[in-house]
This record gives sequence, structure tokens and C-alpha cells, in this order.
Amino acid sequence: MTGVDETLSTFSAPARVAAPDEGISDDELRLAARNHGMPLEVLAEEVTPVGLHYVLVHYDIPILDPGAWRLEVGGHVERPLVLDMATLLGRPQATATVTLECAGNGRALLRPRPVSQPWLDEAVGTARWTGTPLAPLLAEAGIRDGAVDVVFTGADHGIERGVEQDYQRALPVAEACRPDVLVAHAMNGRPLPLQHGAPARLVVPGWYGMAHVKWLTRITVLDEPFTGFQNAVAYRIAQDAGEAGEPVTRILPRALLRPPGFPDFQSRTRFVDRGVHAIEGRAWSGHAEILRVEVSTDGGSTWDDAALGPAADRYAWRRWHWTWDAATPGPHVLCARATDAAGNTQPLDQRWNRQAMANNHVQRVTVVVR
Amino acid sequence: MTGVDETLSTFSAPARVAAPDEGISDDELRLAARNHGMPLEVLAEEVTPVGLHYVLVHYDIPILDPGAWRLEVGGHVERPLVLDMATLLGRPQATATVTLECAGNGRALLRPRPVSQPWLDEAVGTARWTGTPLAPLLAEAGIRDGAVDVVFTGADHGIERGVEQDYQRALPVAEACRPDVLVAHAMNGRPLPLQHGAPARLVVPGWYGMAHVKWLTRITVLDEPFTGFQNAVAYRIAQDAGEAGEPVTRILPRALLRPPGFPDFQSRTRFVDRGVHAIEGRAWSGHAEILRVEVSTDGGSTWDDAALGPAADRYAWRRWHWTWDAATPGPHVLCARATDAAGNTQPLDQRWNRQAMANNHVQRVTVVVR
Repeated sequence: MTGVDETLSTFSAPARVAAPDEGISDDELRLAARNHGMPLEVLAEEVTPVGLHYVLVHYDIPILDPGAWRLEVGGHVERPLVLDMATLLGRPQATATVTLECAGNGRALLRPRPVSQPWLDEAVGTARWTGTPLAPLLAEAGIRDGAVDVVFTGADHGIERGVEQDYQRALPVAEACRPDVLVAHAMNGRPLPLQHGAPARLVVPGWYGMAHVKWLTRITVLDEPFTGFQNAVAYRIAQDAGEAGEPVTRILPRALLRPPGFPDFQSRTRFVDRGVHAIEGRAWSGHAEILRVEVSTDGGSTWDDAALGPAADRYAWRRWHWTWDAATPGPHVLCARATDAAGNTQPLDQRWNRQAMANNHVQRVTVVVR
Repeated sequence: MTGVDETLSTFSAPARVAAPDEGISDDELRLAARNHGMPLEVLAEEVTPVGLHYVLVHYDIPILDPGAWRLEVGGHVERPLVLDMATLLGRPQATATVTLECAGNGRALLRPRPVSQPWLDEAVGTARWTGTPLAPLLAEAGIRDGAVDVVFTGADHGIERGVEQDYQRALPVAEACRPDVLVAHAMNGRPLPLQHGAPARLVVPGWYGMAHVKWLTRITVLDEPFTGFQNAVAYRIAQDAGEAGEPVTRILPRALLRPPGFPDFQSRTRFVDRGVHAIEGRAWSGHAEILRVEVSTDGGSTWDDAALGPAADRYAWRRWHWTWDAATPGPHVLCARATDAAGNTQPLDQRWNRQAMANNHVQRVTVVVR
């Protein structure tokens, strides 16, 4: 093992924040070339087709044999279980339309910029997930008194900030026992794609993506708080490197508008002809239902209420629309912001934190009227 | 239209090359967040699943109604045709496994770096495309004497380097009439996904991706060379901005290896334990069959022959494998290079050109043995 510790610090560096004038680094580009967001024109679709839903994979995509796949349920339980795929498919099934968003969405727009997967606004998607509810499975295993956290382990293995690990993230027992949490095996009516966790993953409606553990192989009930990397180090909201901060949990409200007109190839600036344009988008929150969406065409100085479409599944995005009389030639900055029933609204300015987590400042789309 | 010309030059700038120390720009990041490569661990799959195949979309993804879709065949022909989807599906069908690669693959590794979609090595994928052969369709329309080029028009519309356009690219008549060119409506046995050109696209086996026009709506035979943007300005191999250069056509040979071991999250450096490791990958060429793949574990100083897997479809990648006795701890740079039957081999160093087109220098994967 000669030299491995020094090598680790070279090739698995601590988290850092970019210098004020630093362009996107090679590390960030390598992540951006693998992972991808949802092109925002696909906001036209209520359910995001496979291949257009955002994907974030920490390590490599593991390619598992569904026939050999097993899910162990153990730890602080009365009766540990092992399920195979036939057993999973034979259990009661539920389907829900759920919007997933990466906790790091918006990261590359923050100043200074935390260095990690460099998302702009597009790390989102909505799918129809089918699987078996987790709560009855945990009830069968029999959670023992004193249980605190439930740890979900994926088959994806790597090193992150010097720590070798299988991807693991825990939920508090009460969240894990919610009736709408699923061990999902299908997305949009078909078996899970490799990159979305085949053959089975967790779906935790309302929570940011890091909780929806993909390539799920083990569920472990703990009688103490989980201190693994993805709960205790990553996915925390903190200002400084030394600070423990708060864990990332549910999705804060966000509205995105489908950029109108057509784009320039490279700058992605939009062009529309002078006249009346239908503006539409989607809005969601993991905290409470969406009550209001507002639109601005002057970069957030003035706002107008959009009309909300029909209520959707509780944790799916809701369509909204608005009419723009684009009368003045030249560039305009379009924005949308959502407010939920819990009183959360989107800020115009960034809420900076060191990992750029749970940031939901308003989208800005430059549109040139001609 | 006041101010639009000035606005165009602001928001749709000419092509440029990055300064020597310039990080990836906001423009490049916006492209990288939309488009995506194939994560290289998916080289394990002979046919790339939907959502993992590379995607490059110049403008927005148009969302077309297959019921309203029509394909016009016209121009310098005897009998212009209009096909709907039922007619397309009722015609003779063919299926081929074809490797597609973006002509700009490897761009972000070039020094100095041409500014555009910043691909590393991963702008590739192999799919089973099903459709109707184009040649009989052109024969039905009756190409007239003196025809030179056949222009394929997509429904994707945008501005590029100041030029507003529907995406259009032409093939010489002889290439368009090859028996293996397809008007494809299915990918891997299912209707085309939105991002791959639904409901129909061109597939030109052996050519770089820019020729496989997506969201195909019009085929126009010309009695003179096509001078549209994507043939005459973009997708050219030239050293200087003023130089016409050569058009990009067929895919040069490339081998990619599936990175062994597991990665660091951010640097993507690989780690393997000391011992014997099976190394595998795929290799392809649009010019001629793959004759040889070599592997290096010292960054290209010494090479060893890999074993080739069974021959695949003529324009599909071919599997290769090799055994690595990883005896020495520390970092190693793994490379693979392919040679085709036409005598083309991959260079160790870049073949720089101003748009970074058709670059096939060898992949370099850093692997730490521990």
C-alpha cells in the first residue's frame, strides 16, 4: 500500500470553493460530461421521458444482474429479510408521479462557486415510479424499540474526499415509515434504466435526490444516528468547512419556465418575435403544495401572477402559464418564482453555502425580442 | 428590428479559441449541462441503452406530433413525394447496429481549446436503428440528371454564429444512395426518443453524428453543391478562421477502454488493487474494419496487442480485451489505440484544427494501483 495515502490526497482532494475569476475546472467538466440535466424545453412534458430526466451518479453506474440481485433488510429488527426480484414484484405495488431534484441544483451559478457537479438550473425531472411500499416491508422485519435511522446502501462504490465507500444515505425512522416511500423497480412503466438504479432504488417523495438511493442492496435499521459520509459530511448546509451544519432534507420550492422562442447555439440566449407569447413552466416543493407562481420580464423588479394548472400528485410538479406581450425590442430577463403553502418562497439572490445545497434562487432567462 | 444586428453579435458570437489559461466558460458549461456523453463504464454494453448514448442537440429539442409529421422529398427530382408516418412504417424495413460519434469528440482536451460543446472522450454510443432504406425512396422520387447533393432538413431551429437556420446537412448523392442509409423511426426496438430525433431521423452508417439529421422533415435534391451553414461553415477541418478547409465526413478509428476499478467522485481517477485485471473496451472506424487494438499502461511509451472479439456489424464497434498484471503500486496511465484496414491509426498527440473536428488522439485513463 506504499504511497496510497499521499496518492489519495492528490487524487481525492477535499472540497473547495473556486477562486473569484476561476473558470470551470477540469474536475467539474468531467462531472458535467457524465451527468446531465433536463433540457428546459422538456418542461413541456408532464412526465419526463427516460434520457431527459436529470441524472447524478457519484461513482460508476453498477451494472447488476436482476436475477442475482438481493435486497437485505436487517440491523435493529426482529426478523431480518432477504428479497429477490420475484418477491419484490409479487408484493403490493404502488405508482406515484414524483419530481426529483438534485440538492446541488444551481451550484454553478453561486458566487463564489463551490467546486463539484456544476449544475445550472436543470437538475430536475418528473417520473412515474412503480414499486412496493417500504413501510410494510419494515413492519414485516419488525423495527425494534430504540431505532433511530434507516440506512440505505447502494451498489455504487467509490472514493469521495478521501473516503472509500458504498453510497449510503439514511432517513430518520419516521420518514422511512411514511406510506409513500417506495422500493421502486420501474420508471415510466418500464424496468428502471441502468442509470436510474436498476434493478431497484428508493423513492422518497419530496426529498432531494440524494435520499433516493439507487442500485439498492441493503436496508439497515440503526439504534443510533447514522454517521456515514453522505449524511455527516456531504449533503450538509454549512458556511464553513469546519462547521457541521444542517442536513439536506426536503426540496425547497422552485419554478422553472420553458424558455420561449429559439436559442443561439452557444450562448443559449433566446430570440422571439415582437408580439404575444404563451409562457409556461412547472413548479414544485417538497414542503407543501404550490400556492403561487409569479413571472417577471424585467429581471425581478416587477412581478405578475401566473395561472396555475390543475393540482398534480402531491410531490409532482404543477404546470403554470402566463401571457407575455413582448412589445419592446431588445433583451429582457424572464424570471419565475414559486411560493408554497408552508410560506416558502424563492429568493432573488443566492443563499450561499459551502456545498451549494438546497439553493432555489430564481431562474434568469435572457430573451431578445426582435 | 431595431438593434437586432448588434444584439446578434452580442448573443451569437463568432467561433473562438480559448486563451491558454482559460477555464471552461459559461457558454461551454451551458452546452455541457444539456448535452451529454456516454459514461465510459457503459462500454460494457454492446448496445447502448437509451439515456446513456451520447446526445448533441444544436438548438432546442423540437417536440413533434407523429400524427402530424410529414416528410417531403423534393428538389431536383421527377416526382416529389410526401410521406406520413403510416407510409414510412409500411415501407420495407431494415435494422442495423451502428456506432455514432460526435465529430467534436475530444474537443475539450485540445490545446489551445476551441470553444464549443466541450467533449472529453465520451461523445459516442451504439444503437440498433430501424427504419426504411433511403435509396428506394430517392429512386421513387426519381433523381434527375445533374444532381449533386441531397440536403436533409430537421425541425430544430436556432441561431448559430449569427446565422438563423433550421438544422440542415447535405450528403453527396452517391452517399445518400448507399443501400444502408436509413430513415429511422426506432432505436433499440422502440420509437425514437425525443432527443434522438422523434419521430424520424437519418442514419448514415460510418459518418460522424452531424450527418444523421434528427427530426427529419425534408429531403431536397440539389443540382449544385449545398452551401448551407453546417456544410460550408461548421463541421470543417481547417487551421484558421478564414480558411475553407475540408468537410467532416467519416469517423476515424478510435478505441476506448472501460476504466477499471472504481473512481474518485470528483477527479474521476481510478483505483484498483494490486493484481491481475481484465481490461476491455470497444473500437470502431467509419473507414474500414478494425484490424488491431493495442494497449499501453505507461502513457503510450510501450504497447501490447489486445485480443479482438467477434466481428460486429460493419459500422458497429468491436469488443476487445486484454489482461493487465498491475504489479507496481502508484499511478499508471492506461491508453488504447485502434488501427483499421484502411491503414488509419490513432495519433498519440492531437491533430489540432480550429473547430476540433474528427480528433481521435488516444484516450488516457489514470489508474492508481494500491
